[in-house]
Amino acid sequence: MVTEVGSKVKKVKVGDHVGVGCIVGCCHSCNQCGANQEQYCSKMVHTYNDSSVVTYGGYSDHMVANEHFIISWPKDYPLDGGAPLLCAGITVYSPIRYYGLDKPGMHVGVVGLGGLGHVAVKFLKALGVKVTVISTSPKKKEEAINTFGADSFLVSRDQAQMQSGVGSMDGIIDTVSADHPLVPLISLLKANGKLVLVGAPTKPYELPAFPLLFGRKMVGGSFIGGIKETQEMIEFAAKHNITAAIELIPIEYINTAMERLAKADVRYRFVIDIGNTLKTA
Amino acid sequence: MVTEVGSKVKKVKVGDHVGVGCIVGCCHSCNQCGANQEQYCSKMVHTYNDSSVVTYGGYSDHMVANEHFIISWPKDYPLDGGAPLLCAGITVYSPIRYYGLDKPGMHVGVVGLGGLGHVAVKFLKALGVKVTVISTSPKKKEEAINTFGADSFLVSRDQAQMQSGVGSMDGIIDTVSADHPLVPLISLLKANGKLVLVGAPTKPYELPAFPLLFGRKMVGGSFIGGIKETQEMIEFAAKHNITAAIELIPIEYINTAMERLAKADVRYRFVIDIGNTLKTA
Repeated sequence: MVTEVGSKVKKVKVGDHVGVGCIVGCCHSCNQCGANQEQYCSKMVHTYNDSSVVTYGGYSDHMVANEHFIISWPKDYPLDGGAPLLCAGITVYSPIRYYGLDKPGMHVGVVGLGGLGHVAVKFLKALGVKVTVISTSPKKKEEAINTFGADSFLVSRDQAQMQSGVGSMDGIIDTVSADHPLVPLISLLKANGKLVLVGAPTKPYELPAFPLLFGRKMVGGSFIGGIKETQEMIEFAAKHNITAAIELIPIEYINTAMERLAKADVRYRFVIDIGNTLKTA
Repeated sequence: MVTEVGSKVKKVKVGDHVGVGCIVGCCHSCNQCGANQEQYCSKMVHTYNDSSVVTYGGYSDHMVANEHFIISWPKDYPLDGGAPLLCAGITVYSPIRYYGLDKPGMHVGVVGLGGLGHVAVKFLKALGVKVTVISTSPKKKEEAINTFGADSFLVSRDQAQMQSGVGSMDGIIDTVSADHPLVPLISLLKANGKLVLVGAPTKPYELPAFPLLFGRKMVGGSFIGGIKETQEMIEFAAKHNITAAIELIPIEYINTAMERLAKADVRYRFVIDIGNTLKTA
């Protein structure tokens, strides 16, 4: 909630619910900034752990931010379930839009059902897209389909299942940051299909040319999203009742949460209730 | 030249100059055929060396082809200099159009100044695009700029030169089939830039995710082009006086030509004058 504004601030007023995403600074003058793509500005400042400017993110009961980077919060939209969308949501929403994987009737794969993947499924379903979740873990099938609304599920280690999906998808959003092969995913694409990477494994992928040439396929990347598009994303989410699946925790739980995070033991995002718990801690 | 037509043929008549490109068959009923992308039809038949249907290409004084695959030849457009464009021309023209690298004022790189590359430079210049040739061979600079009209030239093994081009290009057409690294090319792209592969090295490329993520870049493939687009390409070439740089040879020279081809000793395509030399040979 806004507690104080500068004299020239027009975007928000005291009492408004607002959010701050992954970006709190940019040059405001390069081509990317001019195109509302602050995320690709070479002087972009991350909200947390930035190496050029010291930033600590939102782990406090208040923060100061330039109004340019403030996201106005839709009325009655949950603060806790919506908060992770300022990172996980925009990271998948932006490429769905940019790469044109947002047309009703398309078939799009989502690789990895984690913090990013489960939100990607929700956005795609709200857009009228047929969604197949591709995961190493057969255990996630029930949740992918029954909780998040995916239409089908492929176990990526099951060659027969993967074979059944060959040539069927207009695009794929690959959220996985663990090392994994791209060729089986490229095979799932139709001609002119697009494989979009939003995770970043430490090792380079192996990419043979032929699977891209025959079928005019592409492998693209995408990184969070700009401020204008983040505002659009959060309004889209509010309109379609999309929130992240979260576990709301008090600040006292933070060390346990970090240990569980390291084991990927969360479905699918921890949200810290700073406002109600930091002062009492 | 057309010497005979079937009774239902409407596209061409006896006496017309025509061409046949890389494709002489397809299913005519799949999504790709319906979208005039016969090159991505799974039943596509190559004009030469096909493995499903035995085809021998144009190495004879006549051939029979279905009218669907016939390219009408523009009036007064050279048969010899235009012939290689039915493969090399469409292979670069199609991705220039599909990936939107055809806007006046754009800056596009062409990797490799060979049969495909020199035609890519000519098409891009005719479209009003600024062109930089990227090559391992400094010897090709003079020809790239003075003969084909490229605006600049980067020696890919010269790190200082490559560094000078970082972040400057909207797209790159990579025609090289020898193994080479992609990351230095991706670095040349602006945000939202596109690296298009039309060559196919035998070894997979190494593709780290981060250079694609930061800047929302993509690596795409493309393979020749459809019949409709090949017709469009050849008309564009005729209008802009674009032909391939060729060495016209008689059929008797074929074995020498093959030996020279193996050494890449041709600038930039051999064309066999079948009509004037096969019967006398």
